[in-house]
Amino acid sequence: MNIEIYLAKQAKKINKALDGTLPKESEWPQVLHQAMRYSVFSGGKRVRPIFVLAACEAVGGNEKKALPAACALELIHNYSLIHDDLPCMDDDDLRRGQKTCHKQFNEETALLAGDALLTLAFKALSASDGVGNVKDLERQITAVGLIADAAGHRGMVGGQMVDLESQGKEINLPTIEYINTHKTGALIAVSTRVGAYLGGGTPRQVETLYRYGKYVGLLFQIVDDIMDREGYASAVGVPEARKEAESLLLKANHELKIFGAKGKVLSQIADFVLNRRH
Amino acid sequence: MNIEIYLAKQAKKINKALDGTLPKESEWPQVLHQAMRYSVFSGGKRVRPIFVLAACEAVGGNEKKALPAACALELIHNYSLIHDDLPCMDDDDLRRGQKTCHKQFNEETALLAGDALLTLAFKALSASDGVGNVKDLERQITAVGLIADAAGHRGMVGGQMVDLESQGKEINLPTIEYINTHKTGALIAVSTRVGAYLGGGTPRQVETLYRYGKYVGLLFQIVDDIMDREGYASAVGVPEARKEAESLLLKANHELKIFGAKGKVLSQIADFVLNRRH
Repeated sequence: MNIEIYLAKQAKKINKALDGTLPKESEWPQVLHQAMRYSVFSGGKRVRPIFVLAACEAVGGNEKKALPAACALELIHNYSLIHDDLPCMDDDDLRRGQKTCHKQFNEETALLAGDALLTLAFKALSASDGVGNVKDLERQITAVGLIADAAGHRGMVGGQMVDLESQGKEINLPTIEYINTHKTGALIAVSTRVGAYLGGGTPRQVETLYRYGKYVGLLFQIVDDIMDREGYASAVGVPEARKEAESLLLKANHELKIFGAKGKVLSQIADFVLNRRH
Repeated sequence: MNIEIYLAKQAKKINKALDGTLPKESEWPQVLHQAMRYSVFSGGKRVRPIFVLAACEAVGGNEKKALPAACALELIHNYSLIHDDLPCMDDDDLRRGQKTCHKQFNEETALLAGDALLTLAFKALSASDGVGNVKDLERQITAVGLIADAAGHRGMVGGQMVDLESQGKEINLPTIEYINTHKTGALIAVSTRVGAYLGGGTPRQVETLYRYGKYVGLLFQIVDDIMDREGYASAVGVPEARKEAESLLLKANHELKIFGAKGKVLSQIADFVLNRRH
């Protein structure tokens, strides 16, 4: 399988689903809906939703069951970027080579667009497929809780808070690890977790793909840190960080063994995304 | 029934449930959790959750089924107040006689505390009672969608956006009505709606209490507008606004007729809260 073709196909599918989930720009209040779409359709790689669908596939699940969660995770990721870029946070003017949401619109619109995207994520998760058997419904409501946990105060938001508190301070390794596992890691790990879960994976399969997601999430952050000479890489030094990254990749791929040929795609995605980042 | 004793009893029950839902202040990152609790426990009247539980009661439902939604609506209400008070929005220093969240902490903490409360609301809605019958699960997942709709871009956030866009401008009556039905009205209307729905009400009961909630939500806003000589009251004049408020109260109470004696509590709550506002 050509991974680039696969990723392009998956991204297209996800973009179509996001397009159907997001309000039309023509709908009042237009500026809010323009800001929501501006941020979501500004060229993200759709890493999280691709992981959701790939994990669902790895357990032999029906992709349709996981597509709403895939959209939800991308919406949450984008809300977090909008709020992160605000003047009171990182105060960034550019994101993916384009003006950040509050620069393109204004601060209050960006704040509300972020709030609306986060809320819409949970709306997406409530979508009914009209079948309504107990197992599927239980999985759906459990996925709401897992995603809320990963995105909330014990997950991504907690990581952002500690990251902000640490700005301009000498920070220790446990704090860096907390930031990495929470700010970036939590959302990636929950992607493979709920993908496998909604796809009807066994508890062992779900736990295995959750661990895989944790390793890969951490790996992404460390690779970013190595490139930017920040965080983990500046704390332990680049050679040590590279060693840790290699070790994480091995651990992640080791988890995929129980899936045999069905784990191949997940392994290729991680490799590809990592290599593109290098 | 003494309505004041009833309201105090309900508020106490809701506060206890909120206390169990919110993270402890001692949990890292403490400042985030302190900010979340500071805002939620700064003396709100718990109007929305009280409506949730009363609507559940009116249809003869088990209060336990509606308590997570009651908490969720209070968390959403509080997140919206935190974000509304931020410098880029209303820029308020005081709320309920105390420093607003960003004044007590700082802007970035307030932003993240709001994000975390919104996320936690959906975590609360995913709580399992371990019973897991199809009807209850369907209601639970549907409630997630109804609440997300009411809180999101087609509900509260949409109302806030239009309100902001209208600041300092001459605005027409349809715009004022949009703001009233969305910014305040949507969350109150969904409170009685999901309370009745999660309590197992018939479609007719749920629709009736949803209409009741819409009238009451609008009524609250108009009474506020009359007090502040703003919005609706400044557009149509105070006498006309008073007439509209009386008409809304009549309409709301008319809806309660099908509930007989079981509708008494809802009627008393609306009266009491309104009279306290006067």
